[in-house]
Amino acid sequence: MTGTDAGLLAPTWAGTPVAGETDDEAWLRAMVDVEAALARAQARLGVVPDSAARAISAVSAEQLDVVELAVASRGAANPVVAFVPALMKLVPAEVAEYVHRGSTSQDILDSATMLVVQRVRSLLLADLRRCADALARLAAEHRTTLIAGRTLTQHAVPTTFGLKAAGWLSLVLDSIDRLEALVLPAELAGAAGTLAAYVEYGRLAGVDAGVPLVAPFAEELGLAEPVAPWHTLRTPIVDVGNVVQFVAGALGKIGIDVQVLSRTEIGEVAEPAADGRGASSAMPQKRNPVLATLIVTAARQVPAQVSVLAASMVAEDERPGGAWHAEWQPLRESLRLVGGAAFTAAELLEGLEVFPDRMAANLALSGGGIVSERLNVALAPVLGKAVAKKVLGEASREASATGKSLREVLAGKIEAELPLDDLLDPAHYIGDAPALVDRVLRRYRG
Amino acid sequence: MTGTDAGLLAPTWAGTPVAGETDDEAWLRAMVDVEAALARAQARLGVVPDSAARAISAVSAEQLDVVELAVASRGAANPVVAFVPALMKLVPAEVAEYVHRGSTSQDILDSATMLVVQRVRSLLLADLRRCADALARLAAEHRTTLIAGRTLTQHAVPTTFGLKAAGWLSLVLDSIDRLEALVLPAELAGAAGTLAAYVEYGRLAGVDAGVPLVAPFAEELGLAEPVAPWHTLRTPIVDVGNVVQFVAGALGKIGIDVQVLSRTEIGEVAEPAADGRGASSAMPQKRNPVLATLIVTAARQVPAQVSVLAASMVAEDERPGGAWHAEWQPLRESLRLVGGAAFTAAELLEGLEVFPDRMAANLALSGGGIVSERLNVALAPVLGKAVAKKVLGEASREASATGKSLREVLAGKIEAELPLDDLLDPAHYIGDAPALVDRVLRRYRG
Amino acid sequence: MTGTDAGLLAPTWAGTPVAGETDDEAWLRAMVDVEAALARAQARLGVVPDSAARAISAVSAEQLDVVELAVASRGAANPVVAFVPALMKLVPAEVAEYVHRGSTSQDILDSATMLVVQRVRSLLLADLRRCADALARLAAEHRTTLIAGRTLTQHAVPTTFGLKAAGWLSLVLDSIDRLEALVLPAELAGAAGTLAAYVEYGRLAGVDAGVPLVAPFAEELGLAEPVAPWHTLRTPIVDVGNVVQFVAGALGKIGIDVQVLSRTEIGEVAEPAADGRGASSAMPQKRNPVLATLIVTAARQVPAQVSVLAASMVAEDERPGGAWHAEWQPLRESLRLVGGAAFTAAELLEGLEVFPDRMAANLALSGGGIVSERLNVALAPVLGKAVAKKVLGEASREASATGKSLREVLAGKIEAELPLDDLLDPAHYIGDAPALVDRVLRRYRG
Amino acid sequence: MTGTDAGLLAPTWAGTPVAGETDDEAWLRAMVDVEAALARAQARLGVVPDSAARAISAVSAEQLDVVELAVASRGAANPVVAFVPALMKLVPAEVAEYVHRGSTSQDILDSATMLVVQRVRSLLLADLRRCADALARLAAEHRTTLIAGRTLTQHAVPTTFGLKAAGWLSLVLDSIDRLEALVLPAELAGAAGTLAAYVEYGRLAGVDAGVPLVAPFAEELGLAEPVAPWHTLRTPIVDVGNVVQFVAGALGKIGIDVQVLSRTEIGEVAEPAADGRGASSAMPQKRNPVLATLIVTAARQVPAQVSVLAASMVAEDERPGGAWHAEWQPLRESLRLVGGAAFTAAELLEGLEVFPDRMAANLALSGGGIVSERLNVALAPVLGKAVAKKVLGEASREASATGKSLREVLAGKIEAELPLDDLLDPAHYIGDAPALVDRVLRRYRG
Repeated sequence: MTGTDAGLLAPTWAGTPVAGETDDEAWLRAMVDVEAALARAQARLGVVPDSAARAISAVSAEQLDVVELAVASRGAANPVVAFVPALMKLVPAEVAEYVHRGSTSQDILDSATMLVVQRVRSLLLADLRRCADALARLAAEHRTTLIAGRTLTQHAVPTTFGLKAAGWLSLVLDSIDRLEALVLPAELAGAAGTLAAYVEYGRLAGVDAGVPLVAPFAEELGLAEPVAPWHTLRTPIVDVGNVVQFVAGALGKIGIDVQVLSRTEIGEVAEPAADGRGASSAMPQKRNPVLATLIVTAARQVPAQVSVLAASMVAEDERPGGAWHAEWQPLRESLRLVGGAAFTAAELLEGLEVFPDRMAANLALSGGGIVSERLNVALAPVLGKAVAKKVLGEASREASATGKSLREVLAGKIEAELPLDDLLDPAHYIGDAPALVDRVLRRYRG
Repeated sequence: MTGTDAGLLAPTWAGTPVAGETDDEAWLRAMVDVEAALARAQARLGVVPDSAARAISAVSAEQLDVVELAVASRGAANPVVAFVPALMKLVPAEVAEYVHRGSTSQDILDSATMLVVQRVRSLLLADLRRCADALARLAAEHRTTLIAGRTLTQHAVPTTFGLKAAGWLSLVLDSIDRLEALVLPAELAGAAGTLAAYVEYGRLAGVDAGVPLVAPFAEELGLAEPVAPWHTLRTPIVDVGNVVQFVAGALGKIGIDVQVLSRTEIGEVAEPAADGRGASSAMPQKRNPVLATLIVTAARQVPAQVSVLAASMVAEDERPGGAWHAEWQPLRESLRLVGGAAFTAAELLEGLEVFPDRMAANLALSGGGIVSERLNVALAPVLGKAVAKKVLGEASREASATGKSLREVLAGKIEAELPLDDLLDPAHYIGDAPALVDRVLRRYRG
Repeated sequence: MTGTDAGLLAPTWAGTPVAGETDDEAWLRAMVDVEAALARAQARLGVVPDSAARAISAVSAEQLDVVELAVASRGAANPVVAFVPALMKLVPAEVAEYVHRGSTSQDILDSATMLVVQRVRSLLLADLRRCADALARLAAEHRTTLIAGRTLTQHAVPTTFGLKAAGWLSLVLDSIDRLEALVLPAELAGAAGTLAAYVEYGRLAGVDAGVPLVAPFAEELGLAEPVAPWHTLRTPIVDVGNVVQFVAGALGKIGIDVQVLSRTEIGEVAEPAADGRGASSAMPQKRNPVLATLIVTAARQVPAQVSVLAASMVAEDERPGGAWHAEWQPLRESLRLVGGAAFTAAELLEGLEVFPDRMAANLALSGGGIVSERLNVALAPVLGKAVAKKVLGEASREASATGKSLREVLAGKIEAELPLDDLLDPAHYIGDAPALVDRVLRRYRG
Repeated sequence: MTGTDAGLLAPTWAGTPVAGETDDEAWLRAMVDVEAALARAQARLGVVPDSAARAISAVSAEQLDVVELAVASRGAANPVVAFVPALMKLVPAEVAEYVHRGSTSQDILDSATMLVVQRVRSLLLADLRRCADALARLAAEHRTTLIAGRTLTQHAVPTTFGLKAAGWLSLVLDSIDRLEALVLPAELAGAAGTLAAYVEYGRLAGVDAGVPLVAPFAEELGLAEPVAPWHTLRTPIVDVGNVVQFVAGALGKIGIDVQVLSRTEIGEVAEPAADGRGASSAMPQKRNPVLATLIVTAARQVPAQVSVLAASMVAEDERPGGAWHAEWQPLRESLRLVGGAAFTAAELLEGLEVFPDRMAANLALSGGGIVSERLNVALAPVLGKAVAKKVLGEASREASATGKSLREVLAGKIEAELPLDDLLDPAHYIGDAPALVDRVLRRYRG
């Protein structure tokens, strides 16, 4: 009945650093940190003795039995009610009464959650910066490397692989911006959001320890000071969820592009090789885009998890019977998935193999069809718009039916002197792709 | 980095039987069971020696290191590729080559998933039958116990608590029907769904071991025989998901009703008391509807999880790069949540306390307003439809404004002899509630 | 302020038959049908005069102003409260009082919804049967047409296009089965589910018109008789949602496969050509898989809509303040999307162009790599398992690095006499694909 | 087959201003605006004649047949391909060739969508500011109005209605902040994101009209200039979706609280009365919280819609076959729902009736139990912690069992002189509620 979940069914995050920052032990560590910060903040105001704050701060989460606490959490539908007496037993008897003084389960769990988010954010930012660096290199290096632009699965017009990488970079930079802008507040509210018990204990000690406790408590945790309690004003949770689903989607876009470009018939990129990765023992020829798959797997799950968080904003009263409780696992799972995806993406992008030759070969598949948009524009002034369109349409169909190249077919149809070599060269029809790459790189650098 | 998830953030299922049937170890046990069943089925056809099948069947999942396998699962984006060599090491050297013969990761994992579902289904059915029995008792006992029917949060017309319980019973019976009707097939397909390697190994042994292997394999597992491989035809997964979200919603309806009826101001039911349950150390007067909260918590999460399963039907090729992988955790989480919810619901319903006096007191709050629908019908023939409506509207407003009972106000307004005592008695306006209870009970019994 | 939604943003269903069965007018028609059926059922019991039932049955929804009613629906948060007086004005004055006798908004709207579902089901079944017929032809015709089996975007082992089509057929047959099994009940419950006002009006007429009204009412509508009212027991809604998301996913699987196979570099199938379809005026060479895109578009939306339906099972009291109301649009949108997708899929599958030559050419791309699984099996007894694996791995890498075919490389490495022509022929490694096709076709025929 | 959706099933937005800004006609207007802005921007650069830009700008969307265009949208799976020739017919023949010059469907539709969002944002901000003003008044007026703080449906400790209103205000201010911070960029990208055809037409005119076209185009639309094309970098869409689901959730929290407080048994607030609103013709005593229901209805749907937008970030290639198309309806529906909810919330909050007497009466229901947290704190120093806890627990149970007030029971148990009148007065245990109200009001004012 232990419920171990080491990630056997979640290779996106199994064994990655985020796993260790989001498991039950991580939450328990954060809960211990919050109780200790509360005691220290109350000590600063004189509500509890310094010695008590020190003793509580000396407790390590490893002294607690996480499985036992998990099971006991059913009694109150949250893990804090059983956690507090367990914590009390780990401090000297005379300190026990200062543990959790004036507090309520949700203050502890909400603050602990913000701590966990903060720790995951650090991991995420580091991995996303690795992604950004790798992508900036790819964008610069392949600023003019030709590749087919594909829309609705079909070759459309040429573009450059550098612009593709610059686009991915844009999403990574957007992700970093949104993560950095996240405000993560401590929660200090008391049983129904009035801070009443904190005030009452302050009164016993002759100090004002309601609102004045909020800032030092947040400071001890390295979290932001909230304007007001947020037990049922779930801005911080939904802000986190919204950013997390953004990051997951951003990485998912990269992942799915890598998958498409890795297809056997396309073969324009390959994931970094590593011993045993993407291999099939039964099919030695295979080299599966496993990293991209792990990323896409995450991106397919996160939006659903976040929809639960958003729905939980509709939380009745001063603490709801379910809306709060339903946040915990989806938030944890979202953090894990996006953390694993970012870790994976950094590895993928730093080692991505790019095959310009295959890109060029694929570009040539349509025998010039890929620049027909340009021909459309260029032939109109020469042949007249209507004639140009007619000629081009016929030529496209003929080329497609006969397997001849568009150049060959057109040469037989058009008498006017036309710079067909120029017009049909995909390299001459990449628009402002290089300039767009530069714009994104300027953003990256600045 | 171990990623323990013992349910600290999931009190709905922490420590309940379903936790032990859905954790990583449970999946590993099922994977071992599947490999053993494959070997036995192949032995029955003569593709592998009986002794090999016996040796493989003797392996216990406990001999495997689940955390190590979880981490290794990143190499192939699924846990089976690392699992197979680990399993080979646990059998005699000469047997190793018969392990996983002709097979592919997805055959093992899909079949293992069906085994897990089957085990969870047994737990679910047992708990739901306990719920049904408890509800049938409540429905019969309170067949005519008056309670306010409430719509859009307002008293509407009277009903009976028995009919409410019968409604809950209907949903539980619907749940049982849908669970029992679920078809859980084994998966046997080979690398791309043609059974080719199974056939090839059969050829080496001189037997036809492709399609003919399917039935004995399914039989060894106690699963259904599929018409065709379902690697990317995800009927069984979505069928399970759809039923699971049905059951979660059914229990959620019961949970939210219990929460409403438990409100301090309403107080018509109470959860079974248990030591430490629903208690607040700081607020001794509280008795939180904790069990209902655990159930509602589950019901709020499952639909989002199942939406991932449904989206995964759109699985490209013979095995998709993400759609399959994204199923695993949401399916596991759904099973856990609904399993925990059913376990909790059985406990809740078997011990539910019902307070008919409070129901009666609340019914009287509107001073007769709760039967105004009936008065509307009854006064029309006496006073004329228009007059009746006018009188009743005025009386309602006057009663509401003055705090007088509707009876008193009406008596002053209507000269006609009317059986006001009868008309205003909520007990005389419960329609066919008892007969409807009987209909549901007949379904329960039959 | 009219809020027209003719499908400008929903090409999946715009202008298809389902649009006309699911728009506001369609719901209004169904609401009129329900009121008429109620009157006729009550006339059969003697609660209202036959002439009144006839007069109500003569009303046409076109006499009502749907925009006006939509705006008025805000007053009660549902469209029925304003609809009833509007309907009364369309019958002779003496009949007005028999309109909506004893009824409640939810009885009308729930029953109307079931009528709409029933009408959409007929469309769906017809289109799915067209899909099934087309797929059965494709499966039979291409029973042994070779195509690369692809997993995680890479060539795995050969399969047949017929098996692919048979897989799609399986999903369509599963869809038909689930649609046909749907039970669509009428709703008859009264203000809070007791049938009280129906009973009361029956009493005035001297008949028992509560429970006995249910069967004739359902019969008049061609719907099933419910065991009990389902105002807050949302089995029928979630059953519909679950089936609809199944069908959408089934069609989405077909759509995404068609998209992949249509890729410029793959080119193994093409959508049926039609004037102006999939064309790009600017890029005449393009032939976008537009029909598949319309289908995939639907499949990406439906699971989210259905998750709202499932969440709405958690409906408090005898009528909830939001859970019911939140069902309407998601259910309508789901029906529209799946209806449009089925219509589109029939067109797509009846005209799908299949290019076996391209399939063969792509199969050859890996120079024999696609049958390496078989070589693995076949070489082991000849060379010894370990040597075989080593040789094959080296050969694969050498072939990939040098561009030589696997056959050529292997021939240079293996001295044993091996039937390499046989072993490397993809046509000799399709396992039981034809037999599996036959199994599915037997199901289709039977 | 017209598919009218005037909101018959969506009373949240039917007939409200947002309906007129989000229907098919609104999108068509925006599409016309975008084509006109493109022509004017190109005229500024000299790519098209000024006269052409003027002629295109003179077209009105009302000249187009929206139903016809909707149906035609199936041909290309988007509405622009059919829209462009229809638009061409509405300008002088010699201008037609300047319509949509160098453009692609997605540039038009994405830019049009941003215009629609911008228009909806104005409506939203106006309504949310009305909400904020109303809530600031309520918070100030009821700064110390006592009300029971409720957690998990049970009375917990006292709070003030002003703090409740201040909490709602916080969420509305958070909503306004997030809406105002939204960046809404124009889309200008060309067929595959390189601006190539814009560049090519510029070349014909001898000007650089790729990247230099972006700023004037955005300026003409009043939208932001993007750093790079965002055809498949869906930051703007997901940013909008995330904010919209935040606002919907914020309003949903207010809605559900109003519903709870409106319950017949609680009766602490009432929605503003209006003719015909919340009335039931059959049950004249009812006054349903209809506005709150409309709001909650929206909040229950939006997260699912937004999950589709987030999932669409995983958009393959330069234009995906489904991910883009699946955004349109869920985004539109989200805008409509949140727009209707904000409109409704303003009406609700400006007219909310508050009943302090009922709040006081409900507070007294627990006979002092509601301040037991305080007693816990206060008795400990007097009686000793252990004794205090024991006495209080016993007293709570005795009070609950006998119906006596806690004061009475305690008086009989405790000999020490205690200021029981003070300790048991809920007004003396509201912690820092008033100070917290002030903090929120300072934010509102500043």
